[in-house]
Amino acid sequence: MRFRTDLAIENKEMYDSENQGEGIEISGVEVETDRFEDMIEITRIKITDENGSKVLQKPLGNYITLEVEGIVDGPEERKEAAAIALSKELKRLIQFHNKLKVLIIGLGNDKVTPDSLGPYTVSKVKVTRHYFLMYDADSDDEMSCVSGFIPGVMGSTGMETADLIKSAAAIAKPEVIIAVDSLAARNINRISSTIQISDTGISPGAGTGNMRKQLTEKTLGTKVIAIGVPTVIDSKTLILDNLFGFLKDPEGAEQYIDENGVQMIVTSTEVDQVIKDFSDIISNGINITLHPGIYS
Amino acid sequence: MRFRTDLAIENKEMYDSENQGEGIEISGVEVETDRFEDMIEITRIKITDENGSKVLQKPLGNYITLEVEGIVDGPEERKEAAAIALSKELKRLIQFHNKLKVLIIGLGNDKVTPDSLGPYTVSKVKVTRHYFLMYDADSDDEMSCVSGFIPGVMGSTGMETADLIKSAAAIAKPEVIIAVDSLAARNINRISSTIQISDTGISPGAGTGNMRKQLTEKTLGTKVIAIGVPTVIDSKTLILDNLFGFLKDPEGAEQYIDENGVQMIVTSTEVDQVIKDFSDIISNGINITLHPGIYS
Amino acid sequence: MRFRTDLAIENKEMYDSENQGEGIEISGVEVETDRFEDMIEITRIKITDENGSKVLQKPLGNYITLEVEGIVDGPEERKEAAAIALSKELKRLIQFHNKLKVLIIGLGNDKVTPDSLGPYTVSKVKVTRHYFLMYDADSDDEMSCVSGFIPGVMGSTGMETADLIKSAAAIAKPEVIIAVDSLAARNINRISSTIQISDTGISPGAGTGNMRKQLTEKTLGTKVIAIGVPTVIDSKTLILDNLFGFLKDPEGAEQYIDENGVQMIVTSTEVDQVIKDFSDIISNGINITLHPGIYS
Amino acid sequence: MRFRTDLAIENKEMYDSENQGEGIEISGVEVETDRFEDMIEITRIKITDENGSKVLQKPLGNYITLEVEGIVDGPEERKEAAAIALSKELKRLIQFHNKLKVLIIGLGNDKVTPDSLGPYTVSKVKVTRHYFLMYDADSDDEMSCVSGFIPGVMGSTGMETADLIKSAAAIAKPEVIIAVDSLAARNINRISSTIQISDTGISPGAGTGNMRKQLTEKTLGTKVIAIGVPTVIDSKTLILDNLFGFLKDPEGAEQYIDENGVQMIVTSTEVDQVIKDFSDIISNGINITLHPGIYS
Repeated sequence: MRFRTDLAIENKEMYDSENQGEGIEISGVEVETDRFEDMIEITRIKITDENGSKVLQKPLGNYITLEVEGIVDGPEERKEAAAIALSKELKRLIQFHNKLKVLIIGLGNDKVTPDSLGPYTVSKVKVTRHYFLMYDADSDDEMSCVSGFIPGVMGSTGMETADLIKSAAAIAKPEVIIAVDSLAARNINRISSTIQISDTGISPGAGTGNMRKQLTEKTLGTKVIAIGVPTVIDSKTLILDNLFGFLKDPEGAEQYIDENGVQMIVTSTEVDQVIKDFSDIISNGINITLHPGIYS
Repeated sequence: MRFRTDLAIENKEMYDSENQGEGIEISGVEVETDRFEDMIEITRIKITDENGSKVLQKPLGNYITLEVEGIVDGPEERKEAAAIALSKELKRLIQFHNKLKVLIIGLGNDKVTPDSLGPYTVSKVKVTRHYFLMYDADSDDEMSCVSGFIPGVMGSTGMETADLIKSAAAIAKPEVIIAVDSLAARNINRISSTIQISDTGISPGAGTGNMRKQLTEKTLGTKVIAIGVPTVIDSKTLILDNLFGFLKDPEGAEQYIDENGVQMIVTSTEVDQVIKDFSDIISNGINITLHPGIYS
Repeated sequence: MRFRTDLAIENKEMYDSENQGEGIEISGVEVETDRFEDMIEITRIKITDENGSKVLQKPLGNYITLEVEGIVDGPEERKEAAAIALSKELKRLIQFHNKLKVLIIGLGNDKVTPDSLGPYTVSKVKVTRHYFLMYDADSDDEMSCVSGFIPGVMGSTGMETADLIKSAAAIAKPEVIIAVDSLAARNINRISSTIQISDTGISPGAGTGNMRKQLTEKTLGTKVIAIGVPTVIDSKTLILDNLFGFLKDPEGAEQYIDENGVQMIVTSTEVDQVIKDFSDIISNGINITLHPGIYS
Repeated sequence: MRFRTDLAIENKEMYDSENQGEGIEISGVEVETDRFEDMIEITRIKITDENGSKVLQKPLGNYITLEVEGIVDGPEERKEAAAIALSKELKRLIQFHNKLKVLIIGLGNDKVTPDSLGPYTVSKVKVTRHYFLMYDADSDDEMSCVSGFIPGVMGSTGMETADLIKSAAAIAKPEVIIAVDSLAARNINRISSTIQISDTGISPGAGTGNMRKQLTEKTLGTKVIAIGVPTVIDSKTLILDNLFGFLKDPEGAEQYIDENGVQMIVTSTEVDQVIKDFSDIISNGINITLHPGIYS
């Protein structure tokens, strides 16, 4: 039985627990751990071949996880450290230079709190492309040329989010797209402690069961970096994962849920604070990375 | 095993199913059913003595349930019919007269979508008390003297919501308090179809496990009417209720959940639309009832 | 001296007052007046040639003005009458048929109250295109195929709003675009009483002095209907218009303002209520027109 | 002719300009200027007697003005410097100690952007009183016991804001009340550059012409500190101040405006950014001051 998660690190954990032990090497998967200022655990998972992809059920590429406890209701310096750590990891993937053009996408629904991380984050990122247009400039030593786009959700626009993003990319012509989104995790404790950065593309609307179009470097011709924070867990995961030991017929239970399922969201009671704190952290991390002359 | 619900009608249903049959009379409980325009089912439950109270696990008083399918994405006339039906039931409890003073309270957290029904509804109710103050009037043939108050949640104010409500009542000196709140149900299908009206008081913050102070006609000296719509289900309820038949040790499972529980919210993926539609219905129902000369 | 206004009817009034009298015919301008239910004054101005266009300083086409007093704080039936009157005028320009495809655009900045009419209105319009996609349908007898798009403002996106709208139109492929926007008027009393419908295209961002690209039936290949409500007056207009008689050197005063001008917004203290009421009216008017089987 | 302003420093400037020169001493007024990190100008005006009060048209007490250019669209370090400077001035008025109890009030209307500074700021201040209640603690070495209250405006509550604040103070029993509000200035350039701190009390609703009740240390028995940022200018001020030299009959013009005045708000087109940046600065300044163990 497999649980739904958007986190590569949870797929790794599931593999480990099924195969007795954290130490086991997976062919096609490289794992590196690191720390930042004794507060943040960093795990860099790189899937290098098809075997690794099959085992971890994710496309080839990089999945970096930042884990930090005590963000909500913790001291402010933790949020600052998390922004700096995020920026350090982003800088491994994006090098600031004076002609850099970036498009920031805020995925999700700003009207549903656990799905609003993307829109909130984008509203806090410094957008600058119109200054470049106004002064007819194509480079700046202090800031990147940044556009921002909040495509909305299909239920509000009637249009596929992937199509809207492709259109915005055709206008802004970025070298890098950074997409920020709410994720689903298996373990509810991850809701207030984890950030995942990946470079393998995005599937807007996947979480809500809507039609999916993959947006990747291949389909867009642009590097695509996804930054996500788990804000929900899947209701099926909640049930099966927590109560596995108490079930007499796990497969029957799974089938029952699949057949009787209503679309549900499971989230934390403090999700408003999670959205506020993590949109601060991610927007700061992005601003520090892209606008070194303004944020420092 | 008992499931958490704020709906008297669900407690009644559980009793019925445990006692083989809907028809059974409960001593101390009067039940009356009705319909409105072939769209809305009305169930009026009256708990008249301690036995009824014990069986249905609710205080003595009236619990009226309106059930209407197809509000979200349904034809507009359903929302209008629901508002009129709500108004008819309110008029059994509140008689408009030209000196009527009412305080509308919006309970819950406007920053967390499934908890935002109260604040949204109050923002759509016509507040009029300041006109009465301005013209030094104490009566009007077309409208009631209505105040509105959104007390916030303890995590944002640091103060007990019940204390803030008592203060607002001391200022507005209403004859009737109407408190609007999000409720928890056992059955997720109720999330987009049910309104409960009761006259037995409110416990602000009860849903989030915060300290509770009951506000009732007794403690406030004012009639207290609560209007609620289920927008969440309890995660324990979700698990145990759906999977009861698949559990080999239900009591162990329940204990496990109680011991390992994280505070969670389970809601519908269309909760934004539920909040929008039901805050429209309830504010319309209130406006029609209290301001007959303006809304008709 | 000319005052800035987005309302054709105000340009007409200025011409009339400069030329002594309302009765005067203007070559190239047809004017028709009407009433709806004794509450709403309707003025249909049609500019038919270049002379009319020059005199009224507006492109050739139709400009329909609905004037209704007492919307804010008035009886609910006025808002309903205004929605019906708006729908009647829209139906002169758009005929519902079972394959009709429409894109609704909400222009302006949802973070600045007087500029938020467009975004708020779109959030209340029923968007349906995703149902058509889901069921692979291309027609429906009860509703149009409606998309909604809130492009944001250049300061938040870094992209020209006109480009984003063109992209959305390329995805939704509508026969009609309806763009809703806040307007500027000369007379502050119009802020809570006027709706203008026109079919001559839109200039997103014109109000904020940003770069302008005209979007018209010619440039888009799609009929473009603009619905607007004045929510601001120009600060220069405010000064010169109100104090004209007290100025000893009107031209010098105008030049002074032009040279020392800071970008300013002048609006009503009850602008929040204006936005709420007029977004209700316009979204209702649109829903009634496009979805006759659902709203009636 | 006198212009409406909430800023003591502007009253001082008007006095200076009417009396030829900045240098002039006013009996009953002490003025001290200072700088913080070469970015922020600090002016501390102390009104010490009735003459000073009459000349500057303000009650006796302290009025501290922070002036900082380039907040909106400037480097982040300016906002940080402004928060620290604000905190330094607050610490002259409030001494942190381990039993300190503070109530933060967010005045104004969160639905009207230029009036929303108070509510936004309070939503970013760390409220802690419920932790003290939960752990039954009356002191903490790292944080103050902080409550937060957003009373709304009379048009939404029907109640006088001053009465609601008195009630909240009766619950939270603070030693200090900090009220944050939007102010009116004479000079539009102050809208994005000025913070005023005063200790002479507040008049909720004064700005909108509603009934006024003064809340002062005398009426509340609690120190009252007001922090304000100008976000609007008075329309009469706008007209008369800018065009004084062009008027042939200034008194007639003033009278005309008074007689024909509609309630208007004049604000900057970038008011959304002003609210965002200054609510960040003020909430940071408050958090640093009251919670030294968490924010540093």
